[in-house]
Formats: sequence, C-alpha cells, structure tokens
Amino acid sequence: MIIALLWAVSAAGQVLQQDDVPVIGAQVFIEPGQTAEQVDGWFRTLAENGMGMCRIRMFESYMRTPDGWDFTLFDRAFEAADRHGVKIYATLFPATAKDDIGGWKFPYDEHQKASFGEFIDVLVSHYKDHPALKGWVLINEPGVGTAPRNPYTDACRREWLAENPTPEFTPDGYPVLVSLHEDEFLKDLNSDFLGWIAERIRKTDAMHDIHVNTHAIFNNCSQYDFPQWRTFLTSLGGSAHAAWHFGYFDRSEYALAMLANCEIIRSGSGELPWLMTELQGGNNTYSGMNALCPTPEEIAQWLWIVIATEGKGSIFWMLNPRSSGIEAGEWAMLDFQDRPSARLIAAKGVAEALEENAGLVSELEVIPSGIDVLYFRESMWAEQKLAMKDDPYSGRQEGAVMKSALACFKALTETGLNVGFKAPEEYDFTKEDYSGTSLIVANQIAVSDEDRESLKRYVERGGTLFVEGLSFYFNSYLKLSVDKVSEYILKDNIFDLNVGDSTLTCHMWQGFFAGSDETVKTFRYGRGKVVWVPSNVAMGAWETKDFAPLSSFLASVLEYEPTSVQFDSYHPGLIMRTLKSGKSKVVVCVNKSGETAQVKFTGFEGKHNVKKVYVSSGAGFDDGVMTLPSDAVAVYSFR
Amino acid sequence: MIIALLWAVSAAGQVLQQDDVPVIGAQVFIEPGQTAEQVDGWFRTLAENGMGMCRIRMFESYMRTPDGWDFTLFDRAFEAADRHGVKIYATLFPATAKDDIGGWKFPYDEHQKASFGEFIDVLVSHYKDHPALKGWVLINEPGVGTAPRNPYTDACRREWLAENPTPEFTPDGYPVLVSLHEDEFLKDLNSDFLGWIAERIRKTDAMHDIHVNTHAIFNNCSQYDFPQWRTFLTSLGGSAHAAWHFGYFDRSEYALAMLANCEIIRSGSGELPWLMTELQGGNNTYSGMNALCPTPEEIAQWLWIVIATEGKGSIFWMLNPRSSGIEAGEWAMLDFQDRPSARLIAAKGVAEALEENAGLVSELEVIPSGIDVLYFRESMWAEQKLAMKDDPYSGRQEGAVMKSALACFKALTETGLNVGFKAPEEYDFTKEDYSGTSLIVANQIAVSDEDRESLKRYVERGGTLFVEGLSFYFNSYLKLSVDKVSEYILKDNIFDLNVGDSTLTCHMWQGFFAGSDETVKTFRYGRGKVVWVPSNVAMGAWETKDFAPLSSFLASVLEYEPTSVQFDSYHPGLIMRTLKSGKSKVVVCVNKSGETAQVKFTGFEGKHNVKKVYVSSGAGFDDGVMTLPSDAVAVYSFR
Amino acid sequence: MIIALLWAVSAAGQVLQQDDVPVIGAQVFIEPGQTAEQVDGWFRTLAENGMGMCRIRMFESYMRTPDGWDFTLFDRAFEAADRHGVKIYATLFPATAKDDIGGWKFPYDEHQKASFGEFIDVLVSHYKDHPALKGWVLINEPGVGTAPRNPYTDACRREWLAENPTPEFTPDGYPVLVSLHEDEFLKDLNSDFLGWIAERIRKTDAMHDIHVNTHAIFNNCSQYDFPQWRTFLTSLGGSAHAAWHFGYFDRSEYALAMLANCEIIRSGSGELPWLMTELQGGNNTYSGMNALCPTPEEIAQWLWIVIATEGKGSIFWMLNPRSSGIEAGEWAMLDFQDRPSARLIAAKGVAEALEENAGLVSELEVIPSGIDVLYFRESMWAEQKLAMKDDPYSGRQEGAVMKSALACFKALTETGLNVGFKAPEEYDFTKEDYSGTSLIVANQIAVSDEDRESLKRYVERGGTLFVEGLSFYFNSYLKLSVDKVSEYILKDNIFDLNVGDSTLTCHMWQGFFAGSDETVKTFRYGRGKVVWVPSNVAMGAWETKDFAPLSSFLASVLEYEPTSVQFDSYHPGLIMRTLKSGKSKVVVCVNKSGETAQVKFTGFEGKHNVKKVYVSSGAGFDDGVMTLPSDAVAVYSFR
Repeated sequence: MIIALLWAVSAAGQVLQQDDVPVIGAQVFIEPGQTAEQVDGWFRTLAENGMGMCRIRMFESYMRTPDGWDFTLFDRAFEAADRHGVKIYATLFPATAKDDIGGWKFPYDEHQKASFGEFIDVLVSHYKDHPALKGWVLINEPGVGTAPRNPYTDACRREWLAENPTPEFTPDGYPVLVSLHEDEFLKDLNSDFLGWIAERIRKTDAMHDIHVNTHAIFNNCSQYDFPQWRTFLTSLGGSAHAAWHFGYFDRSEYALAMLANCEIIRSGSGELPWLMTELQGGNNTYSGMNALCPTPEEIAQWLWIVIATEGKGSIFWMLNPRSSGIEAGEWAMLDFQDRPSARLIAAKGVAEALEENAGLVSELEVIPSGIDVLYFRESMWAEQKLAMKDDPYSGRQEGAVMKSALACFKALTETGLNVGFKAPEEYDFTKEDYSGTSLIVANQIAVSDEDRESLKRYVERGGTLFVEGLSFYFNSYLKLSVDKVSEYILKDNIFDLNVGDSTLTCHMWQGFFAGSDETVKTFRYGRGKVVWVPSNVAMGAWETKDFAPLSSFLASVLEYEPTSVQFDSYHPGLIMRTLKSGKSKVVVCVNKSGETAQVKFTGFEGKHNVKKVYVSSGAGFDDGVMTLPSDAVAVYSFR
Repeated sequence: MIIALLWAVSAAGQVLQQDDVPVIGAQVFIEPGQTAEQVDGWFRTLAENGMGMCRIRMFESYMRTPDGWDFTLFDRAFEAADRHGVKIYATLFPATAKDDIGGWKFPYDEHQKASFGEFIDVLVSHYKDHPALKGWVLINEPGVGTAPRNPYTDACRREWLAENPTPEFTPDGYPVLVSLHEDEFLKDLNSDFLGWIAERIRKTDAMHDIHVNTHAIFNNCSQYDFPQWRTFLTSLGGSAHAAWHFGYFDRSEYALAMLANCEIIRSGSGELPWLMTELQGGNNTYSGMNALCPTPEEIAQWLWIVIATEGKGSIFWMLNPRSSGIEAGEWAMLDFQDRPSARLIAAKGVAEALEENAGLVSELEVIPSGIDVLYFRESMWAEQKLAMKDDPYSGRQEGAVMKSALACFKALTETGLNVGFKAPEEYDFTKEDYSGTSLIVANQIAVSDEDRESLKRYVERGGTLFVEGLSFYFNSYLKLSVDKVSEYILKDNIFDLNVGDSTLTCHMWQGFFAGSDETVKTFRYGRGKVVWVPSNVAMGAWETKDFAPLSSFLASVLEYEPTSVQFDSYHPGLIMRTLKSGKSKVVVCVNKSGETAQVKFTGFEGKHNVKKVYVSSGAGFDDGVMTLPSDAVAVYSFR
Repeated sequence: MIIALLWAVSAAGQVLQQDDVPVIGAQVFIEPGQTAEQVDGWFRTLAENGMGMCRIRMFESYMRTPDGWDFTLFDRAFEAADRHGVKIYATLFPATAKDDIGGWKFPYDEHQKASFGEFIDVLVSHYKDHPALKGWVLINEPGVGTAPRNPYTDACRREWLAENPTPEFTPDGYPVLVSLHEDEFLKDLNSDFLGWIAERIRKTDAMHDIHVNTHAIFNNCSQYDFPQWRTFLTSLGGSAHAAWHFGYFDRSEYALAMLANCEIIRSGSGELPWLMTELQGGNNTYSGMNALCPTPEEIAQWLWIVIATEGKGSIFWMLNPRSSGIEAGEWAMLDFQDRPSARLIAAKGVAEALEENAGLVSELEVIPSGIDVLYFRESMWAEQKLAMKDDPYSGRQEGAVMKSALACFKALTETGLNVGFKAPEEYDFTKEDYSGTSLIVANQIAVSDEDRESLKRYVERGGTLFVEGLSFYFNSYLKLSVDKVSEYILKDNIFDLNVGDSTLTCHMWQGFFAGSDETVKTFRYGRGKVVWVPSNVAMGAWETKDFAPLSSFLASVLEYEPTSVQFDSYHPGLIMRTLKSGKSKVVVCVNKSGETAQVKFTGFEGKHNVKKVYVSSGAGFDDGVMTLPSDAVAVYSFR
C-alpha cells in the first residue's frame, strides 16, 4: 500500500489523471517487413485525426537476437510517434509461439518467468526516458478459462494451498462436496503475477503509467480482484470487442454491453483513472466469435459511452492491420491503402468535440442515482461448476447469473437512470446512512456469509435491497443457505407471473415464501427494507427481450436520488448517462431502438445554457424534448 | 440355484412378498452436520404422511475412521426410524470421491473390492439385527455406458474371454467384422459383481431383502440380465427419474414412460416382487438432464402406475435434500423449512387409499391381454455400434430400436389394453399353445439365431407375431440375415404408406417383399401367423406423434384375449391397466391427453359393485362411462 | 517422365484408352463365407445386365496365411469373371483392422510398407497374366484430413522439410505466422506413396491399367496433385458417393455435384482417360453421412453425366453387399435374394444405349465453351486453417471457397453452357491468345504469386478474368495481398447489392474499390480484361438458392465461344453438356428442376439428323424444343 502510494506520488504528472482530457488513439501494429515510410505515415495519420495516443505491442520475439537485443524496429516507431506528438502505451509481449494471437497469461515455469523478467528490465530501461512513452501495459488481456497446470502454476498452487487449505467441512459441520477453492486460487494467481510484473517495471521506471486491460469482462470479472490490482496499477483498462466479448448480446444491444462493461471497469478502478485499452476498429473476416464490422455510428457511440462513464480515453484495435495469419487485414481503421476509413473519420469527429470542449470533458463525473447492481464472483463460479452445457433452458447454462444482473441494469438504464455495476468489495459498506439508495442482487446464486453481513448492515442503515431469482441459494461453500423461501419450483421456460400489481415474465423457477403465496414480499430491517421476488423475472425479461414490465416494477420498488435525471417514460433501446463537470451537467444519450425517439427528461429543474457538445445529424433538443434518430448520439451540457 | 432357494426360504417373512400391501416411502439423506432434532423430525414426518418405508444411503465415507468404524450418524437415523415405525432399505455406498453423485459401479482393482467386502461385513453385521432394517440395496444404480478399463475389469475381461473367445467367423464362415462381445461381457460383469455383493451380504445376514435398483432403463436394459439376477435378489427395483431417464419422451408422455419402465421391471422380476426404488420427489435446479419439478398430479400418477403394474411400493428420491454440491436443495419432498410439500401431501393421499384398500391392493395381478412387446439386447447393442451421432434422421440415431418398441406399446396402451414389455429370455417360450396371444418385434434390427428359433416355435404353436421395420436385419454376429425382404429403400424422413386398408406414416425405410409389391404380408406357419410390415411405421408414428393409425392397424392384426378390458375407441394420452385381486377387478386409469376424457369400456360384462379406490377431483364413473379430467387418476374396483 | 512414357507405350492395347467405348460395371465384393454358386451368379448377372467390367477388393487379409499365400477365394472370382466375359479392376487392399471400412492411406512404418510391397509383388505376379485382369487400383480412395503422425510419415516429413524448409519470413520480410507447409507436404506425400505403389506394380506387370480413385473431391482435391499423378497412372478415377461426398448439396443438386466432380477429374486426368471408379449403387442404412437410396432415375443421370464429361465408364459400389458389419446389406444393386434391383435395370438400360451407339460414344469430346472455373489449393488450405467451426455465417466456415466456385459453375451450367472446373496447374497458360475465353476466380482467398503471374499473362493475352468475393486476399504465405480493394465490410448474412445493372444477392462482405463506390469494375490489361466484383455474390446465390441473377450477370460479362450450344434462357435445375463425336454433336440433358421443362437451344445452326441415343420416358425433341420431364435424361445426336 505504501509502495503504491509512493509510486503514485513519484509518477505524478506522468501517469494518467482523473482530470485529464479524454483522448482517442489506436494500436499501431509494428512488425518486420514494414517500411520506414509506412510507419511514419501511420503516426502522421494518427496526428491528423486527433489521436494523440497509441498502443504498441512490444514483441520480445522481434527484439531478442541470438547475441542480445535489437530495438531498431521499435525505436523507429517511437521516434515516429515523437515526431508526430503521439504518446505510447507499450504492451509487454514476452516471446511466444508465432500463431499465439493473444499471448500467454502465466509463465510455463520459473525459467520462462526469469526470461520475461530479463526482458522487462532491458525493455523498460531502453524506453523509460523516451519522450513518447506514456505508460506500460503489464500484459495483454489477463484472464483465462481455468488456471493452467504447468510447473509454474503448480508451484504457486502448492504454496497457496499451504496457506489456504481446502475445507473439508463447512463451519456448521456439513461436508463440502464441491469447492470454489481453485477459482479463488486463480483470482489470487492473476493478482500475484500482474503485481510481480508491475514491481519489476517499477524497479527501473518509477514514473510512467502502469496499466492493464481486462477482457471478456462478463465472464472474466470473477477472476479479477480489482481492489487488489489498485495497489500496483496507476490506471485500469479493458478490451471490449463486440466480436469477441459481447456474446450474451444482440448487435442492437452492443451499446448497452459497452455501457455495462465500462461501469464494471469504472467500479473496479475506484479512485484510479481508467481508459478503454481496446475498442474494435474494423472488419472481421476470419477472427472473432460474432464477426462484424463496426459502423461509423457504432464507433461514435462506443467512444461516447466510454466518456460518459468517466473513461479518460479509448484506443482502437487497431490502426493498421496485422499483415499475416489469422487476423491479417482485420480490425483496422485504415483501409488497405492506409487511408482513413469512415470509422476513423467518425472517431476524428469525436476527438474534435473533445478538443473543443476540453475543459468540460476533463472533469466529468457520473452523478450517482444511488442505484447499483451487484455481481458476486462466488455466484459466477458456482454457476460455472453446476451449469449443464447445452441445457435446453438458458437459466441452467453458464451466463444466467450475469444476464440476470444485466437485465436489471438494462431495464433501469432504459428509464434514463444512472446505474452502477459492482462487485461487493467495490461497494462502500462502511457508511452510516444508505437511505435513498438501492442495491440489486439478481439471481446471484452463491453469496458468502461476509457479503450477507454487509448487505444486512446496508439495509439496517436505511438501504433498499432488491433480491431476485435464486439469489442466496448457496453460501461460498456451495451449501444450501436458503432462508425465507420454502421452495423454488421449475414451472416452465416462460410464464406470466403476477408480482404485486405487475405482470412480469418469468423464466423457469417460481419461488414461494414460507407460509405465504405472495410472489413478492417486503421485509423491513432497521431503517431499510428488502424487496424480494424469489422468481426468475430478470431472466424472463432477458429471454423474451421485453424489459418494460421489469423496468416499471423496479422503478416502483427502488429508492434513488429524487433529483436524478430520467426519461419521463420507459424507452426501450435508449441509453443515457448524466454527469457533472464543474457547475455544468452533461447528458450523453444513445438511441439503439431502431426508430427515431422523442424523449422528455425529468430532473432538469431550471436548466439553461443548453449547449451542444456532440450531436449526430438529425438530433436536436427543443422545448425540453430531445429528438434522436436511430443510432444517433447526442451530448449536451446544461447549467 | 439351490443357494437362492435356501435364501428365499430362510428369509421368508422378512423379505418383500408378492402379497404385501404396497407401501410408499422416501429416501432420508443422512450426512454430517444434521442435528438429532432434524433427523427425528424427518422420520416423524414420514410416519405422519403414511410412509412406513424409507431408504438410506450408507456412506462408507461417513463411517470409516482412521482407527476403525463410527456408526453414530447412521445409528441415530436407524433409532429414529424405529421410534416412528419406519422400515429401512439400506444402500451400500462404498467410499468414493466427494463429488461422485451416483457412486461407482465396479471396483477399480482387487484392493478396492476387498475394502468394499470388509465394509459389507462390518456394516451388515452392525445392522442386521436392527428392527428397523427391511433390506439391502446392493449398490446404487448399476449400469454404465461401457465397461470401464481398469485393473479389476481388465482381469475380469481376460478371464471371461478365456471362456468366451471372440469369434473370428460366423458359423457359416463369414468374417465377423464388428463384434458384440464386449457388450456381452459387460452384461455378465454386471451380474457377477452384483452376485458377489449379494453373496457377501448373505454370509452375514440370511434374512433381509436383497434388492437393487436399475436406472435409465430404456438404455441400460441391454446390460441387465434379469433372469440371472433373480438367482441372488429377493426383490427387483429401479430408479425412474423423469429428469434423468425419460429423454425419449415429452413431459406429457412421462406417465407412459413410467408405465413402460414398470413393465420392463415387472417382466424382469419374474416371480420375485418388485418396487420402484427411486421416484423423483422434487425440483431440479442444476441436476437432471431434462429439469423439472413434478406436479402433485404427476406424483399420484406415478405412484398408481407402479401399483398398476404389481409394484409393491415406491420410494421417493428424496425426503430431505442434500445440503451441498450439485444436488443441494433439489429432488426433495420437504420444503426448505422441512415442511411437507404439495407433492408429499399428494403421496400421502395415495398412501391413505392403499391403507383403506389394503386387502384389495395387496393381491393385485395384471390380467394379461396376451400381447407383449419384445426388445432384444443384440438390437440395442448393434444400434449403439452402428448409429451415427447427430444424424439428421432419428432412425439412424441411437434410440430408434427402443422407440419403435415403445411406439407399439403406446399405440396399444391407448386402446386400453394391457401390454407387456419384455426381453425374450423373460418370455415363456415353452408352452404348447400360444393361440390368442401376440408378440411384437418392432425394428429389432439384430436377433440371435436362438431367439429366431423361439419365435418360430411360438408361431408354430399358434402365436401371432407382428414384425416391423428393420427387424431381423442382423443376427448376433451382425451378419446380414434378411430372409423374406428383398430391399429396404430409404425414401424420406416421413411419408405416407398404404398398409392393407390403413394409411400409416413411415419414417425413412420402406421394405419390399421378394417378388411382391405388398407393404404387409401374412405368413402362416403351423397354427400361427406372422404379420410383417417391413417398413418403419412405428418410428413414423413416434416422429409425428400421431399414433392413431398405427393403433388401429395393430388392433386389427393382433390376436389377444377377447375378454380383455378395452376402451371402445382409441384415446390418445390415456393409460389404463386392468388387474384382478381375489374376485375383484381393478382398473387404474390416467389421463395425459390435456383434455377431459369420456371413456366407455368394453369387456366388463356383468360388472357390478363399482367402488372408488382412488379418484382425482372431477373424475367419475356413471352408466359405464368414465369421466376423467386432464391429469386425473381414477382407480375403481368391480366384481 | 520417360518411365511414364515407356509404360504408356508398353501397355498400349491393355490400358484404358480415350477412344474406348464407355462401360458400366460394379464392385463384386469377395469375402469368405460365399459359395461358388453365389460368386458365379454375380458374374453371370453382370454379364446379363450389360456390365462387362467389375472391381474387386483384393484383401491381403484373406490371402496371407501363417505359412504363405492362399488365393483360392479370389482365383474363384477371377475364373468366374473370365467365364462370363467380365474384366476386373483389382484394388490393392493391404492388411488392416477388420472394421477398417476404407483401408489405410499411408503405412504406419517401414515394416508395414515393406509388407505391403511384398503383397504387391506376390499378388501382381499371381494375377498379371489372368485374362480377366483389366487393371490395378493402387489403393482405395487416397486422401485424408491431415497427414497422420507416425513413424513412416514422420520420416517422410523430416526428409521433405530438409528440402523444403519452413519459411520464417515472406520474400518481402514479413513474418510468416501461419504456414501452409504441412498441407504442401501432405500433397507431395500422397503423390509419392501412390507413385511408389505404381512403380512396384510395374516391376512385375508392365501391361495393365494403373488407376486410382479420388474421393470427397470437393474437400480432398486440394491434396491431389493430378499433373504429378499422371506420371505414374494410365487412367484416373474417383468415388462419387452422394451419401458420403456431396454434403454441400441438396438432393436435387446431386446431379450438379456429380457434374462438377466429373469435371474436376476430367481436368485432372489431362490426356489420360478417366472413369468413375465408384458410384453409389444402393441403399444406406447405417453408413453414409447423408443417407439415401439412389432412384433408378438418379442412376441413369449419374451414368450419363459421367459419359457427358468423357468418362470411359462407371463402376457401381456395389453389386452384392458386404455381409457383415457397418455396411452390411448396404450400397448394393442386387436385392437380398441376389436379383437385379430397379437400379440395376436402369443401369442396364444405359448400357444398352451405349452398346447400340458404340461408335458414337467411343469418341465423345466435350466442346469447350472457353469458360473455366478455377479452384486454388492454397485457398482451400487457408480456409481450413482460418475458418471457425460452427460459425453462424457459412462464409466463415470451411467450404465457402469451394461453394463460391460451385455457385458460378452452377449458374453458368444452368444456361446450358459447358464449363470446366480446374486447378490452375491443369490450365494451359502457355497459349498466345485467350480471346473468347473466360476464367472465373470466385472467393479464392489465397492465390500464390506464381498463379497471379499466370492470370496476369492470361489477361494480357486477351483472356477475360472474372474475380469475385475475397479472392486474392492472401498470397501463399497467408500474407495479406490485397491490391485494388480498399475494404471488405461485413454487412449482413444476406443483402441485396446493385452490381452494374443487376441486383445480386450478397453474403456477408461487400468490398469497395480504392477511391470508388462502384460494386464492379472492369480493368483492361493488354488485350484482355478483368471484371471484378469484390463482394460475396456467389455465396449469396448459394445461400439463397437463387442463381438466376448471378447467372444472367455472368453471362453478360464473360467472353465465350459464340457458337456454343446454350439454352435460350436460364433454366434452374437443368444440366447440359454438348459434345462432339466425329462429325456428330451430342447433347446430354438432365432435368432436376422438379418440373417438366420446355427448352429451346441456341447454337444449333443447320442441325439435322437428330437421333435419339437415350431418352427417358416422356422426353422428346420437336421443332427445336426439348421437352424434359422432371428427373428425365435425354441424349440426342445431331449432324
């Protein structure tokens, strides 16, 4: 902790700051075969298109020679960057197989780790004083399916298990049949190895940004321990590629996916700044799981969503394409003749708006509505262990835990409310008063006793807790820990359920309260309350793509900041964030509904000085009503 | 054989008897962490709900200590059972991995076998004189996909092959390219190991019931050699879980699946009594292949179907849920507060009816109509070897053999007729006269020469044999053994086929008789006849879910007991069994049609003394017409 | 080369000749257990049904004895063949596992190779002077998914790599990340091993035909180096089984698939004659991927398509079925009583027509229209490496390269034009003038620099090159090698695209020319031109099954022999080939449209002497209009 603080101090002025103006950049892919003219041209293109930032993958394979090191290839790029005023995030990329697209996440053995250490020493020493250097990306996209079995991780595991023996019995004496211990280990292994890289860099360079990019966030977040990461990072980031990472979503929902991804990183970064380290820049041919080419409109939407969640910038993957192999010619913002694509021109438009509004956008802060959706890593781990592959029911497949949380997030976002998306360890449970706030625990099937205690205290101190689905079924030993519910009954894939005055759509399970046939119950504790719907109504909305009933139900039972900006009615497919910047308020609005929307806002008492920051063609704001064509973005500031 | 007889004698009065009153019970799941109060409460609950029987899994893992044995946990349960008058079926459950839900089926090596033997000795010795003990379940659910390869089975295989060398050529000199020898071995391995356990128990306890529960019967029956099992069992049983074992069926067909499952076990048990060892009691969350929660109506239906096929009772899986791991909180008849669920209350209703009609129900015997459906293990084995995974045609996937038999069973059951479901070795081929009886061989693709001889004799002695589909394509060497048919032609997935005066629906193959364009031919041999439709009309009905044409065609060509009770017309979704008990007749009727049925019976000449035994709400019997709402059960007795 | 010529000379009169009368035959499956009467009967049946040719699998397993060799089983067959005047193609089938249906393609090690060599010596020596022998089939169906890893292939690979080191960098200095080297090796391994077998046979027998049968041509053609094969073969062949090899096609397209298959072999055979070594003769039960039973109509269609592409005959797989195992009772042209099926009778009808028109059909030559579709092995290899399994888009799955070529082939074939289907090494790029000819390069994603040069020269010398889809994306190092196109944008699964005056259907990617928004551009080089549609309109037609727009577009941009016979309009589902024989022209027409077609031909100026060669019932030709019922074949000759 002290070391982290020292770093933060010593690096002041160099590392990314919370009040930096957001910047837009792109990955410049450097590899043998390129000419000096090409390389120079790419950095010139960056500069000409408002991109003062780039990222470069520092291939050990292209630096290490039989006799030592040859940095020529990368020196040329750094010099070109400097010449054109472009700052560089340099990604450590230790030697690996030629066709290893993403790089390894853990060394194979101590030998490989030592070799990586040597590479770090030499590389950092070589570039640390280069004026173009902005920061270091520890490694590309940490996060794996399961912890590999190899000499390095086996040794780590033995050591970890010595300190964290696998429990045979729960504290109350029941056998532990399925343990989450290996998942816990992987989480710690990630933090340890990333921390080791950071420390190794800091041995040589105490000044520059230390950054890392998460990826596949809706699956991998369970293995990221962000509060721990904050002790060695100076900024947090992510790869958010529609083609790889948004498999739970339809294309029209990618903007929402981006918003949720950003909110998870924003929450994870805490007091640290964050930026989106990779955004898809171009076309897929053979790579990507759900192939696409972003439209210029999507490019603008994604950039503004990052800014609307306090991101200090975005770096596209990539400016120029890889020339060979599985990703050859893909993902790029330049065309095959190295000219700007329509996507790059769209990004330039956003960059210009940022430059013109530098003062305003440098200090943007999301105005909390008081509502946060929580996700619990134990729930994700439990689901991964228990879910059946290819089950006919979505609710029994991996993803139902996250989709339930996302469904509530979407239902509320489409009312115009700001909603956070957090792991419990990122939420401040130490306050004295939670009145006017709400937490959502939707189908979080496994919750530890510690987190249960936190939530209980939260309610006692005035908070409103909304509980949904199979939440709290297990504790962290995967022991059945149901309390108020008497039975969960699998009724059908989709069925209507009367909940209070609403008719919600439910998926699979209807829960029953002990001694009651109510479908929702409100329990009052201390100064707060728990509103509990023990049936899978979030998955019901998700599966049927109809979020209106869930949205209006949630709005009716949650507590939140009464002055929050909102839509005056539910708008499916609309996304908004409301921020403040000094004395101004800013709204960022995106329309993914497929139709032109006419939206009236509530919560803007006495608004004036309405000012365009960035407005897509056809959008406007008159008489308190925003007109937003499909796929448009509108950013306005107010006083 | 002599040993088996001795056992039967010595155990008289203790073991299950054919004239016992059927009982209903449930599994009490005993594991560490439970309190004495909980355990006592569960047995009290059993007693209060008419359940005089339970089953307990005797975990070696919770008994064996570093120094010896500790039976405390299970002693407490036995004492509670005794206190509340509940009898126990104790399942041997040798030590295994914590997350092994079902237990192993064969030891890994001689060491593990010896350890199991020691466990049996100690356990049986400890409990054999306990008044609550009813019987032993040899092992949980024998039956595996393929015989494992391990030191134990490898040694067994070597020994078996020494006595049963793999044939290189058929008796007529053709090469044997694909052999069923490994399947034959697995069948014998199952019998041998179960026999070994039984003998080991009998060394210590000559008195109590020796029982075992089959499972996944529609797949596993090919590896169960019931006539052989009868030499060491005193009762037969099964697990019949809709969520795990009825994958060939839709939910509305689960009652039919239960009926077919029961008929297979009834046939397998021969002169021995049988009971349904496991019936699904509650909700699935993460376990089960086709997850569901039984309705109270289904609970009553399943219980009555067991009784209607001479089952001496049913034990639900389970009363109280496992607390931890993959099945935590699932399958239970109690809710999370240990109170009876609606399903338990439904079971209690059936228990009360049994008690009120104890004399009647203790001596129930199915009245044979004379019609039996045959399944041949060689056909199932052949299909398993030859079928293509994920073939676009169902008829080429594993299951077509069994589904064809089931289709005929269903088509006839829905006319109200009693139909048996048998392996050929369970059928008595030694009689002198088979007139008035019929056997159905539907798409049984491989039939041994021995079985062909039996069937030939059957027909010669007056029987009616119905042959369908690709039956008799192979012999037991998988040598082509087609005789009367000239070609099977793959025409289409589904097509209409005129068969005699009927238009049946056919799937895939139309067969042609040598020198004839008839689609059905009747061959007369001796005193009987063969009615042959060499096209897949059973699968045609199965795939299209329309059984009416097949039903009326079968009814028109089969011979059966003319006094059989029947519906006056075909009723899709209706199930009935007619039994006798002393001088009474009893009908058990279940309606799964989705609509209220009005059914007129034929075959009740001079019926009187109509008496309700168990009648669901809304059902009734007036003027010879039964009214049966959807999902209702009606049980009436007559004189 | 000299050796090959010597063979050709020495074997003259024995080997298959380009001016032989096409013959029809069938595989006689010889195995233990058969009686002498059966065997004699099969050859008699062949003779009685116009089949003067057969094929026999020469099982080493049924010849090698512990002490030496026993040829009795096969001697009996050869004698019966001779007795009935039937010639034999004998397939070498070295010893393998009993259930190995197709045989191995490469030896496991040098020992197995030596053993095979010994078998060849003994077998060839035994039969080379037998009067019934027509030729040797080197091995059954060479071609595998990937080169196996075993001692033999490992040694071959080491040797091959020593001469062909894997490139680390492209000639212009880029890293080679994914190499096609292993595919190149497999291609050479195939040629080498087949060449070795041929040479070994020739050591003993210099006289008879040396033949081999390709299979699964639409996948395996990338590993067949036909020009190399021609140095050791005297005729080329193929297995073209609808049930195994036509997975890209619907059943109504199997005739088209057969035509494309034949064209590939015709092109591969060059100056050598070819015949279809295996055609599906009968029903599938458990074997085959897309099970079927050919109709008599399909039998006639397939036979005529072979003849219409200069095939010197067809051998059905099979006359009599295997008796045991996975293919027992399948594929046969005899029924289970050894009588001719309707399929055999249909084949006899064709055989009679061939006999009646022996002079005409012996000299048939396809009249080139000047249009050829090219496929490039590098494109197929690249796709195999890069494609995602189970991708939601067909264009990203394996097969899109071949389907794109097939789509153009189909679109043009359905206008009545003769179209070739060739690998570039089979095309004569040495001519001085290509005016009036066209080449089609449809979605051939990887093309080597050498082939690019050939195509460039082709255009310079007057040729018309049509380029479609992602063609020329990669070079043979899988390095991005796009030139004229600026971007490929993934737009949607299916969308309309205005191309010139046409509206074509496009799948996935729309390509854009640098600095232009045209969807098609014509580039003139030298005396020729390139017409380029850089969007996937061939896959668009393939996926939507609507080829009319593509057909009319292609007809409008391509150059071809103006005297070509054509339909006067586009006829979906119609297939035609126009051939010459001496002074006659012959048209072979097949109707797979599902409806009776009325077709008018263009290009028959001054036709006379119209003569029926083979005409299905209901077909006719009057006043220049052919009437062709669905599934009919019509073959007419003209002067």
